[in-house]
Amino acid sequence: MAEDLHLVETELDSRSVFDGALLKVRKDTVRLPNGESSTREYIRHLGAVVIIPLLPDGRMVFERQFRYPLRRVILELPAGKIDPGEDILVTGQRELREETGYEADHWRHLGVTHPCVGYSDERIEIFLASGLRFAGEQALDHNEFIEIVQLTHDEAAAAVREGAITDGKTVTALYWAEKVAREGW
Amino acid sequence: MAEDLHLVETELDSRSVFDGALLKVRKDTVRLPNGESSTREYIRHLGAVVIIPLLPDGRMVFERQFRYPLRRVILELPAGKIDPGEDILVTGQRELREETGYEADHWRHLGVTHPCVGYSDERIEIFLASGLRFAGEQALDHNEFIEIVQLTHDEAAAAVREGAITDGKTVTALYWAEKVAREGW
Repeated sequence: MAEDLHLVETELDSRSVFDGALLKVRKDTVRLPNGESSTREYIRHLGAVVIIPLLPDGRMVFERQFRYPLRRVILELPAGKIDPGEDILVTGQRELREETGYEADHWRHLGVTHPCVGYSDERIEIFLASGLRFAGEQALDHNEFIEIVQLTHDEAAAAVREGAITDGKTVTALYWAEKVAREGW
Repeated sequence: MAEDLHLVETELDSRSVFDGALLKVRKDTVRLPNGESSTREYIRHLGAVVIIPLLPDGRMVFERQFRYPLRRVILELPAGKIDPGEDILVTGQRELREETGYEADHWRHLGVTHPCVGYSDERIEIFLASGLRFAGEQALDHNEFIEIVQLTHDEAAAAVREGAITDGKTVTALYWAEKVAREGW
């Protein structure tokens, strides 16, 4: 927006400073709104999806997964990275089937969230998946270990309150899920 | 928990692979639950706080800030990084004063969120700040440019629905703020 020129930073130079198997880090030189220059380091990410899988009885399907950066098991909604060029709905369907064994008759795109605006360009697309059918065993990647848990809205809210759900994409998706369920969003 | 041994990954080796001004990246070798080994790349982060600043009229204080990784202005709650060894309440008070010009009589710690469980150990401590008084001009860092916006709970919810609020820590904090306001959490 034209009226945001007092906030906008402009790229002067951009280079890759770490090119890992998972993480790609760039370091850019930028022009600040006051005309001075500064540097910005950030992760480049292909984006991801998070899914709210709604069972016919109203419960949602969660996962328990060890998240190594935090050295703990995290209770979270199913999610996964978008493959290069992949349609986000296909990502959602693929990840739900692989990680939980479920397929869904109805898919609704709710919105998008940016988990880490300070140092990553990652976006996470939020889907509501309903009309769930168990299609068979999980099809996990070679180095993925995931346990399935089913929670009602009230159980999920209690888990947030008690600190048992802390994952940002999951609480953000629960915000949407409650609005859809209770206010008809 | 002992019953989580089928999920837990154990560190075999850890090294720094990128040591930037902002980002610190490590690459670890881990033992998987099935006994095989794999590698994990992740950001080391000192943690942050996010603040829900509640005005006497019920509105909340938000910020508009250009977030370079996303190349856009983001509407978000005040937040900032914890300085090494800093008490998290002090971080909250400092960031609120510096970024918005407000001070608060009452501070309540609500919970913690992990914004990026897949590739960062960052935690964000969530505070509710009430009894707000405008104490004077913002005291922004040299390269910070922030605009202040005040929104009611309903305006904030509408902004989430319309995609004007996408920031993960902000939606997570709004989830808490609504529970506190409407269900007495």
